[in-house]
Amino acid sequence: MHVNKVSLSEKFSRITEYWKPYIAGELNGQMVKLDKLKGEFVWHQHEDEDELFLVFKGRFCIEFRDKTVWLEEGEFIVVPRGVEHKPVAKEECWIVLFEPASTRNTGNVDNQMTLHHLERI
Amino acid sequence: MHVNKVSLSEKFSRITEYWKPYIAGELNGQMVKLDKLKGEFVWHQHEDEDELFLVFKGRFCIEFRDKTVWLEEGEFIVVPRGVEHKPVAKEECWIVLFEPASTRNTGNVDNQMTLHHLERI
Repeated sequence: MHVNKVSLSEKFSRITEYWKPYIAGELNGQMVKLDKLKGEFVWHQHEDEDELFLVFKGRFCIEFRDKTVWLEEGEFIVVPRGVEHKPVAKEECWIVLFEPASTRNTGNVDNQMTLHHLERI
Repeated sequence: MHVNKVSLSEKFSRITEYWKPYIAGELNGQMVKLDKLKGEFVWHQHEDEDELFLVFKGRFCIEFRDKTVWLEEGEFIVVPRGVEHKPVAKEECWIVLFEPASTRNTGNVDNQMTLHHLERI
């Protein structure tokens, strides 16, 4: 039977680029993605998908049009579909994302940060 | 706008019962549930739902019919639909579950551990 556990630390230790989520698990059409953040991402929104961000190590913030939410280790937030947001990490931060398999990293925006294919890790 | 972060530590600190998952978040028809484990659960399976277990604190194991997998802090496993499993926690363990809103804790089994309604925390 093919049921193996995943160590988040071990997977994160192999990620060397920022803003490049890797697929660490898949279930019910949803994906568990691991991403290292540093710097500013782009303003974007996901029209049909809610997105969960969980901080595994470090801290970062998500800017919304009306407020900024800081997320520390062991904290998560669900950004509802249709809500514009912009992740900003002043220092390196390791996050776990939980979202549909179809979710594109830059949502409605297509620019140099857009990834059209995610790798597994 | 109603987008609030959740602290896993803070939520767990309010859970006083074992094997009673609470809903801490919801997205895309999936739920984030928090559960404190201690002792043995029942053998069961979920016919149509994959289930993710992530250890937040402590350790526990999941028995399968052909092997046992130990899960430590920061490790997760996806138990595919249709696979019989039995969680066992020799010591208290705090876990995060990701699974569809419809998932019943005891899956195909209906016994004294079955919960028909989950509370939010």
